[in-house]
Formats: sequence, structure tokens, C-alpha cells
Amino acid sequence: MNETIEHLLNHRSIRKFKEHQLDEQTIEVLIQSAQAASTSSYQQAYAIVGIEDLEKKQQLVEVASGQSYVADNSYFFVFCIDYHKHMLAAEIANGSVADTVETTEALIVGAVDAGLAAQNLVVAAESLGYGTVYIGSLRNDARKVSELLELPSHVVPLFGVAVGLPDQQPGKKPRLPMEAIFHRNTYTNDSKMRELLEQYEAETSSYYGERTDGVRTEGWVYQMAASMKEPKRTYLRKFLQDKQLSQD
Amino acid sequence: MNETIEHLLNHRSIRKFKEHQLDEQTIEVLIQSAQAASTSSYQQAYAIVGIEDLEKKQQLVEVASGQSYVADNSYFFVFCIDYHKHMLAAEIANGSVADTVETTEALIVGAVDAGLAAQNLVVAAESLGYGTVYIGSLRNDARKVSELLELPSHVVPLFGVAVGLPDQQPGKKPRLPMEAIFHRNTYTNDSKMRELLEQYEAETSSYYGERTDGVRTEGWVYQMAASMKEPKRTYLRKFLQDKQLSQD
Repeated sequence: MNETIEHLLNHRSIRKFKEHQLDEQTIEVLIQSAQAASTSSYQQAYAIVGIEDLEKKQQLVEVASGQSYVADNSYFFVFCIDYHKHMLAAEIANGSVADTVETTEALIVGAVDAGLAAQNLVVAAESLGYGTVYIGSLRNDARKVSELLELPSHVVPLFGVAVGLPDQQPGKKPRLPMEAIFHRNTYTNDSKMRELLEQYEAETSSYYGERTDGVRTEGWVYQMAASMKEPKRTYLRKFLQDKQLSQD
Repeated sequence: MNETIEHLLNHRSIRKFKEHQLDEQTIEVLIQSAQAASTSSYQQAYAIVGIEDLEKKQQLVEVASGQSYVADNSYFFVFCIDYHKHMLAAEIANGSVADTVETTEALIVGAVDAGLAAQNLVVAAESLGYGTVYIGSLRNDARKVSELLELPSHVVPLFGVAVGLPDQQPGKKPRLPMEAIFHRNTYTNDSKMRELLEQYEAETSSYYGERTDGVRTEGWVYQMAASMKEPKRTYLRKFLQDKQLSQD
């Protein structure tokens, strides 16, 4: 165990921040950390938009179903898939990359590249004593986010990251049993997986029960069955296509 | 600056490892670090398969166009999108999540969740003195990887991560200028982006030139125009659909 791993294991999402602004030097070191992450075939197929305009922050709060910490933080970053710069590069080189960037492969590369960069930024921020939270609900209305940030074609917002000084100490929600995430050589069989899920249901059920004085008793299994019943953000495929991605 | 950020900034991919095996305790702390990452709506929509079988490792080398370090390392992890456990959870709860997991939204969630977890694993490994490299070329034949690891429906391999003791000290390839990745409030305009790309072309061109005694002179712009000319892995969308994902 070392300090870095301690930070990783102590992660929890922070949704209440103290009044404070990031200075330029910190913003820079966070972006440098993000950029230092691995990237598929050197493509760097992501962009980060820093939201400093308070009016824009408020509009993002609305997209994110009113989550106030999208505005009330030290800094807010929006991570995007970005193939616009590759389109420009191809123009400079008198070539074309359009057939490549419109594939599902490119969508996966962009999403993974953005994820690796974002997680480096989060790890760097937390190592400096900041708290962070990912905001996937920007995808509630990615079209509005895109208009607000004036994202050109081939650029799609994926999620936000709010950074700030923690003003709360939330508990750590239990993760899936290691064996339900980590398999050896082959994926674990269904009967073993069901057993692990039942075990996790009991663990998360008592976790919620303790924190709600018994009001909430359903654990992860029933929570997922309920929250994932109705498909969400079903406009996304069409939106990606309008952005000239995901045509296949 | 602190130790964690120093590690992040010093990252380079390592493709040659010393003879060495990870012990169980290290494997466990790496998986715990991965699991500690944020996850969209608590879904934990990823799986990690540890490859210990040497025959399987060799077959993965073949998928990865012969990259020997897919087998020659201390440990090899395969990261996957995983909604199989949510399907099982829905069965237990007498519900259905099939309509949700087949959306493009779910594909993005799975890819991002896997990315965050993988980057935490990489950061933890590097903090312990190991080198790492991502292996996206497992997607050269995701179907074969899937068969090899006996991945059920709703589970799709995304990339591998090789971990080992570094036996090389590669240079750090220059990243895009910060302003080409990091935008403020709105995406930078095309003329500024072109300028940044020209600047980056010059920087990477001399980087490669120095390392090849002038044999290679093209920089990032021309490299991308060439490497991204022909679309790759165009079977992926069909494969995802066969796996009951990405139906929309």
C-alpha cells in the first residue's frame, strides 16, 4: 500500500463543496494529468471544456435535472468525444478520415480515451485534497450541452466532472464482490454469479437499511431492476449520427 | 505537485517486461483500486478477466497482431463491457432490463465505466513500480476474444492491460498542445485549431526526426491522416448486436 493507492481506495463522490475557486496553476496540472493518460493509437480522441461562465453553469444544472453542484463547485469540466481535430488534420494533409470517425470502433475509442483522461484528472484532483463527482446526466440533453458549448460536428459531450473542496463526508457504497467483477481465464458461470448477486443484495440492503432507519430495504439487485427498467436517453444514437459519428 | 501527480505525469506505455509474476495480494489490490473508481448510477457495467492460462495468452497475442508483450508480462487483464450481471439481477427481481442495456447510452456507460476502472488499475500498478500498456488491438477480433474467455451475451471485450516490471525506458511522446484539448466555455474556433495543429505537427515531426535520424519526418497531423484513412474493425457494430447490445 502507498499514498496513491490509499487515495484511490478512499474515493467517494462529493456533491457538496466549500466556496472556493481553482487557480490557473491547479487547472493546468489537472489538464496535464488528464493528457498524460494513455490514448488509443495516439489519437487523443477527446476534448475537455472548462466551464467558467456562470450563466452556462446554470444552464448545465438544468440539463442535469437540477443538481446544484454542477454550478456550485471550484471548477467544472465537460469531457467530450472529439474527432473534429482529426477532420481538420485530414484537411491539412489533403486526406480524409471521415469513414473512420463514423464507425462504432471510433465511438468506443473516443469514450474510452475520454474516460482514461477524466480518471487521471480525478485522481490528480483528489491527491491535492479536492473532491470530485462525475455528472453523467449531461447526457439528459447532450444536444443542449453541445449548443451551449458550441461543439462542432464530430464532438459530443459525454459527462462532466465537478471539482471542489469537500463539504461533506459521505460513506463508501459497497462495490460488487470482487468475484462478480473479476474473472479468471473465463467468465464465471451463471449459478455462481447468481450466488454472488444474492450475497451483494444482502450486503447493500443492510447498507441502505442502516442509513435510512430501515425505510429503504432493497439492495443493488432490486435497485438495478427498477432503475434500468425503462431505457434512458434513447435519442443518443440519432444525436451521434447528426454529429457525423456512429453511422454504421 | 505530489507523488501521485508525478506518477501520472511520468506515464509511458511499457512494451517490454522483465520475467516476473504478480502475486495474489498485488492482483487483489489492483482490482480493488479498479473497483473504487466512480461508476455510472452504481451500475458497475464492466468486467475484468485475468488471463493466467498461457495457451489463452498466446491466442490473444495472435488477435493482437503478434504483439508478444500480450503474453510476456507479469499479468494480463481484459476489460469488458458487462451487462450480463444486470440481466441476471433482473431475473432474480422478476423484472427486465433488456430494453435499457441494448441502447447506445448503455454502450457509452459501459465503455466509460470500463475506462475509469482500468485507469485506476493502471495508476495503482504504476505507483507500485510496474509498467503498463493498453492493448486496444484485442478488438481486431473481439469475437475470438469473446469465445476464448467464454463471455456470455451482453459482455464484450474492449481492451487489455498488460502489467509487468519495465525492461525499457521509452521516451514520452508529446501530447497535443493544451489548448487543442482544453477549451474554455466554448470549443475553440477552426482557424485557431488549425494553427495549434500546425504547431503540433512541427513538434511531433522533429520528435520523430530526432529518434529516427531523419528517416521519419511526418508528425501527428500526417500520421493521423494516414492511419485513420481506412476504417478499422467495421464488424464491431454487428458483433455488439449479436451480443444483444447496441440494437438502436
